[in-house]
Amino acid sequence: MSSKVKVAIIGSTGYGGVELIRLLASHPQAEVTSVISSSSAGAPIAEGFPHLTEIRTDLLDDVNPELIKSKADVVFIATPAGIAAKLVPSLLEVGLKVIDISGDYRLKSREQYEMWYKKEAADQIYIDQAVYGLSEIYGDAVRGVDFVSNPGCFPTATLLGLVPAVKAGFIDPSTIIIDAKTGVSGAGRGVNLGTHFSELNENFKAYKLNKHQHIPEIEQVLSDAAGKPVITTFTTHLVPMTRGIMSTIYASVNGTLTDEDFVSLYRNYYEGRPFVRVRNTGTWPTTKEVWGSNYCDIGFSVDERTGRVTIISVIDNLVKGAAGQAIQNLNLMLGWDETLGLKFVPTYP
Amino acid sequence: MSSKVKVAIIGSTGYGGVELIRLLASHPQAEVTSVISSSSAGAPIAEGFPHLTEIRTDLLDDVNPELIKSKADVVFIATPAGIAAKLVPSLLEVGLKVIDISGDYRLKSREQYEMWYKKEAADQIYIDQAVYGLSEIYGDAVRGVDFVSNPGCFPTATLLGLVPAVKAGFIDPSTIIIDAKTGVSGAGRGVNLGTHFSELNENFKAYKLNKHQHIPEIEQVLSDAAGKPVITTFTTHLVPMTRGIMSTIYASVNGTLTDEDFVSLYRNYYEGRPFVRVRNTGTWPTTKEVWGSNYCDIGFSVDERTGRVTIISVIDNLVKGAAGQAIQNLNLMLGWDETLGLKFVPTYP
Amino acid sequence: MSSKVKVAIIGSTGYGGVELIRLLASHPQAEVTSVISSSSAGAPIAEGFPHLTEIRTDLLDDVNPELIKSKADVVFIATPAGIAAKLVPSLLEVGLKVIDISGDYRLKSREQYEMWYKKEAADQIYIDQAVYGLSEIYGDAVRGVDFVSNPGCFPTATLLGLVPAVKAGFIDPSTIIIDAKTGVSGAGRGVNLGTHFSELNENFKAYKLNKHQHIPEIEQVLSDAAGKPVITTFTTHLVPMTRGIMSTIYASVNGTLTDEDFVSLYRNYYEGRPFVRVRNTGTWPTTKEVWGSNYCDIGFSVDERTGRVTIISVIDNLVKGAAGQAIQNLNLMLGWDETLGLKFVPTYP
Amino acid sequence: MSSKVKVAIIGSTGYGGVELIRLLASHPQAEVTSVISSSSAGAPIAEGFPHLTEIRTDLLDDVNPELIKSKADVVFIATPAGIAAKLVPSLLEVGLKVIDISGDYRLKSREQYEMWYKKEAADQIYIDQAVYGLSEIYGDAVRGVDFVSNPGCFPTATLLGLVPAVKAGFIDPSTIIIDAKTGVSGAGRGVNLGTHFSELNENFKAYKLNKHQHIPEIEQVLSDAAGKPVITTFTTHLVPMTRGIMSTIYASVNGTLTDEDFVSLYRNYYEGRPFVRVRNTGTWPTTKEVWGSNYCDIGFSVDERTGRVTIISVIDNLVKGAAGQAIQNLNLMLGWDETLGLKFVPTYP
Repeated sequence: MSSKVKVAIIGSTGYGGVELIRLLASHPQAEVTSVISSSSAGAPIAEGFPHLTEIRTDLLDDVNPELIKSKADVVFIATPAGIAAKLVPSLLEVGLKVIDISGDYRLKSREQYEMWYKKEAADQIYIDQAVYGLSEIYGDAVRGVDFVSNPGCFPTATLLGLVPAVKAGFIDPSTIIIDAKTGVSGAGRGVNLGTHFSELNENFKAYKLNKHQHIPEIEQVLSDAAGKPVITTFTTHLVPMTRGIMSTIYASVNGTLTDEDFVSLYRNYYEGRPFVRVRNTGTWPTTKEVWGSNYCDIGFSVDERTGRVTIISVIDNLVKGAAGQAIQNLNLMLGWDETLGLKFVPTYP
Repeated sequence: MSSKVKVAIIGSTGYGGVELIRLLASHPQAEVTSVISSSSAGAPIAEGFPHLTEIRTDLLDDVNPELIKSKADVVFIATPAGIAAKLVPSLLEVGLKVIDISGDYRLKSREQYEMWYKKEAADQIYIDQAVYGLSEIYGDAVRGVDFVSNPGCFPTATLLGLVPAVKAGFIDPSTIIIDAKTGVSGAGRGVNLGTHFSELNENFKAYKLNKHQHIPEIEQVLSDAAGKPVITTFTTHLVPMTRGIMSTIYASVNGTLTDEDFVSLYRNYYEGRPFVRVRNTGTWPTTKEVWGSNYCDIGFSVDERTGRVTIISVIDNLVKGAAGQAIQNLNLMLGWDETLGLKFVPTYP
Repeated sequence: MSSKVKVAIIGSTGYGGVELIRLLASHPQAEVTSVISSSSAGAPIAEGFPHLTEIRTDLLDDVNPELIKSKADVVFIATPAGIAAKLVPSLLEVGLKVIDISGDYRLKSREQYEMWYKKEAADQIYIDQAVYGLSEIYGDAVRGVDFVSNPGCFPTATLLGLVPAVKAGFIDPSTIIIDAKTGVSGAGRGVNLGTHFSELNENFKAYKLNKHQHIPEIEQVLSDAAGKPVITTFTTHLVPMTRGIMSTIYASVNGTLTDEDFVSLYRNYYEGRPFVRVRNTGTWPTTKEVWGSNYCDIGFSVDERTGRVTIISVIDNLVKGAAGQAIQNLNLMLGWDETLGLKFVPTYP
Repeated sequence: MSSKVKVAIIGSTGYGGVELIRLLASHPQAEVTSVISSSSAGAPIAEGFPHLTEIRTDLLDDVNPELIKSKADVVFIATPAGIAAKLVPSLLEVGLKVIDISGDYRLKSREQYEMWYKKEAADQIYIDQAVYGLSEIYGDAVRGVDFVSNPGCFPTATLLGLVPAVKAGFIDPSTIIIDAKTGVSGAGRGVNLGTHFSELNENFKAYKLNKHQHIPEIEQVLSDAAGKPVITTFTTHLVPMTRGIMSTIYASVNGTLTDEDFVSLYRNYYEGRPFVRVRNTGTWPTTKEVWGSNYCDIGFSVDERTGRVTIISVIDNLVKGAAGQAIQNLNLMLGWDETLGLKFVPTYP
């Protein structure tokens, strides 16, 4: 019998859930023993996802903590926001380790959550318990814990691109402007006119200006890094492609610094963290160069004329921005090498 | 016999040239009497552009001012940069009216041109003669002149989105940051790995950071509008689509202003200018909503938290960003209604 | 006051309806005086279609024959199948001319309609009255009539590519196999998982194998052309693009014929019909070469090895496959030049 | 020291080569020890393929059989056609095992090769030695041999969809018509107008009608399966996506057979061959459902009306159609489980 750690996935019929299934299929120490969906319980998962034909022949389970516990040791929650807030206590109670991808436990302030998410926040006691799993920044805090809140996709790309510079005082945090772009899978599998093919193909659009729920998450971490409150301008755009996030980040540089200074700083900061690749000066990553992988690639352009730096940070929103980082957190929680099952070469072209 | 004004197009085998052909085909007062290409002279234009089959059966002419003058009254130059700088004097000399889309006469400073374009600048005398044809800003100066320099695609979207606010003192010009995105047709028809389908599809990339030749053009006009030197941060990105530009513009607001204030200001400023559509508060235009048309649509989001405004400005890069605006300038030069032949409904979807 | 013919559009919030609005905006003899939608009556049409901002400021009307008659002379029906079957009698009764794009009056046999459409067929008396408006084949029958049934998108591309060869006996009708591909706008604006961006982008799929409702329509016309019953194999595929249909058609050639023979036959057949362009031997049209236009382009490849011909026929599904051909029928019904308002150059690229 | 089999890749700067690198990076028994490119020798491979940053830091080697032998046990040739014909003898001579992806050794007749490829054929002695590695059909012949010719992308999808039916006499081989569609990566990384983004995006085109070099390869295998000469009609189309092939195959059915009969036949035929997935009746695979994986998925639709079957067969052209099947052949040549390193779940969405 397999000695692998058993994993259940709540929300297996969403893009985050199905990406967890894909990635975990080649994990050497974990296996998915239960795929769960409240809306499609009882149906074969391969019915809604024919790419899983003959790969997963099991039926979707209902959301039932006792049942999950009987089948698994760890549970991922990959549902829309608002569900995990109610579900997590009962999952922790039956002794499951929990990795929440949904966002309900990222903000430490219930007030902030309710303001930005327009939903009822989770209990403060569980919010306090959740460790924010931005692996390359807070990875050490994740080791050994039972409950991790996985970062949002935009915050992951943005914060990995900003935290070293903020911590080192290279930039003025009050000047940060983040122009983010995402592939459409970030909008999930729920159908609506906004993600209808003919409306988005050959189209580029901005959305949720100054209202995106990832703003307070970014500010929470930046404030922590700066040691003082930071507020930022953050805009999101939809790109007519399926996967990929680019954050183009602007900030005023403190003093006279060069591209080389930024590259050195970031390479030092991310030393020993294989999933962040800092690019050579004069080159910037494209989203396709991390497609299907857990990498976050970062490049810089300091402009003497304006005294500003432009930082380009890219990830695959479903991997490093969701399922991949969640597995990285699983590895850290269980004391494994953080790269286990994640050393994929990006798929190119 | 037709009493239409006769028009020639130098660079008819590029995307700007072929778009001029498309648009002029339904112009009530102008007709294309000569399509010109130095590289393909003698070949039927429909050979390289089969969509013109049976529509244009003529052969491409060589670049010859006397020949052009014998066939046409007005000539558009839609070549890559560096060619018009040498060609314009001889075209003006034979008595042709000239509309240059190539960019060689946009910058008033030869030094700036040579620094950003890395090519030899045109003669100052002709640079001084060229009227910068950003129709909604400088349209009155275009009426009746013989030589117009058509604005760049990015400057068109960006400046139409910025000039009213800068002129009115609504924003601090020193804080302007422009994050621009373009469809791939902006890169022209010349083949290279950077525009190879498999490299760009399902990809998003930034390019020419802090080095784009449209930066000084934008700054020249903003400085004029502000009445003092303005420098800006401007970044360009390639979107996996063919047409469309969005400029997402950030700036600090002077005092307390609302979305409504911006909408009012812009609607007043662009009154009587039908190709700029200022959107209602709370909505922002997408690139597809101006696709194939000469419109520039603009929307706003003022953020009280940060004291910044985000301005979204979109155009079709080949129409308002090139051929369409060039025809608008033709209309103005010849004293016609500026909308002649340009009242297309955007193609949607 | 305008002396233009007044036109109403039922189903103005679908892609066919909105394309009629775009095309009719530049029609010299017709104008849209009422946009109609049962589901959104009372709302401004530009609210759901912001590309119409400032172009159409009117509200959507409800479906009411008397009201329509008070505002218009001709009505287009661009609804899903099943609605026109019930609506047409009352529209004809109040004296409106009717052009039905929906498909309810294409099949002459009610039995066939009900078998393939799985809906109740229209009354036989109205079916008999409807003239099938495949302009280049049946255009003469359309002149002056009051009620036209506009062909389906696939039948248009397919039949224009087949009828001359079938009529001339160049091919064996029993061997015809049609492999058709369409852009996604053909599936309409209704949202579902099958047209969700992330499911279709970077994907190619076949659908409705041997069950598509355009099969009997194609067979009805081919049987008419052949003078005997013809049955065919017809397969549809979705291409990850918005517009465009290609029918790749296979058939066994009767006797020894060359590409030149086919080109000559088709050029003769379509003489004086400017919207069909027969390509030179050795070249085949792509869908983009007719994009946004009313053209149908056709090319051939006879293979001596197999004794078969491959015919490539392309259209823009929303123009020649729907709104454009409907306007062509309007022109024919009213005794105008069939090209009125339709001489668009394809948009390229 | 690693006990893995050492592998070299000639043509590492093409899409086939770089996909071999991606897939082999997670192969448990093989490792890439030399990446080779005659055109870019000496340069770091990650320079041209930044997605390999920090993954492969080695330089490209020149094509030198002795050098290759000193570094590797097996060599893949992933060059354009015409190079392997000259190269293979020297590679075999130094004792390397060879897997040729280029196509030079697929056709058993030099005459056929020269007629379709328009290049000089390889020596007959080596052609005779090459085993055609269509794994699920000829896999047993591959076991233990030193030289394998990897099938073409279109033949792989097409033949896996046809061979069981031809062998069983379910269809009449003289009636086979194959309508194939491919993503653009199949055209390689060489730049030309035909693969320029703005020309292909939102476009669908047919190419090389009745002239594609994969026609004789398909006929060679079908003739073998039928036990008599088979000629077919085969058409290729470019889809605006990067990866994926669909072959839509038509043939007349012998006698009265149902979808169930085809499904049973194929499931029996491919029993124990995990990379072919035969779909349930009434469903057909899309290309995205095998994206990034080594699967070939097949579905059927028998039409009683016409007596024909439509067979849908899909693969990822760069995996099962090139690099993946090449690794499958490596596994078979070396006596390993054929799925080693290839059990990827398709990437969806």
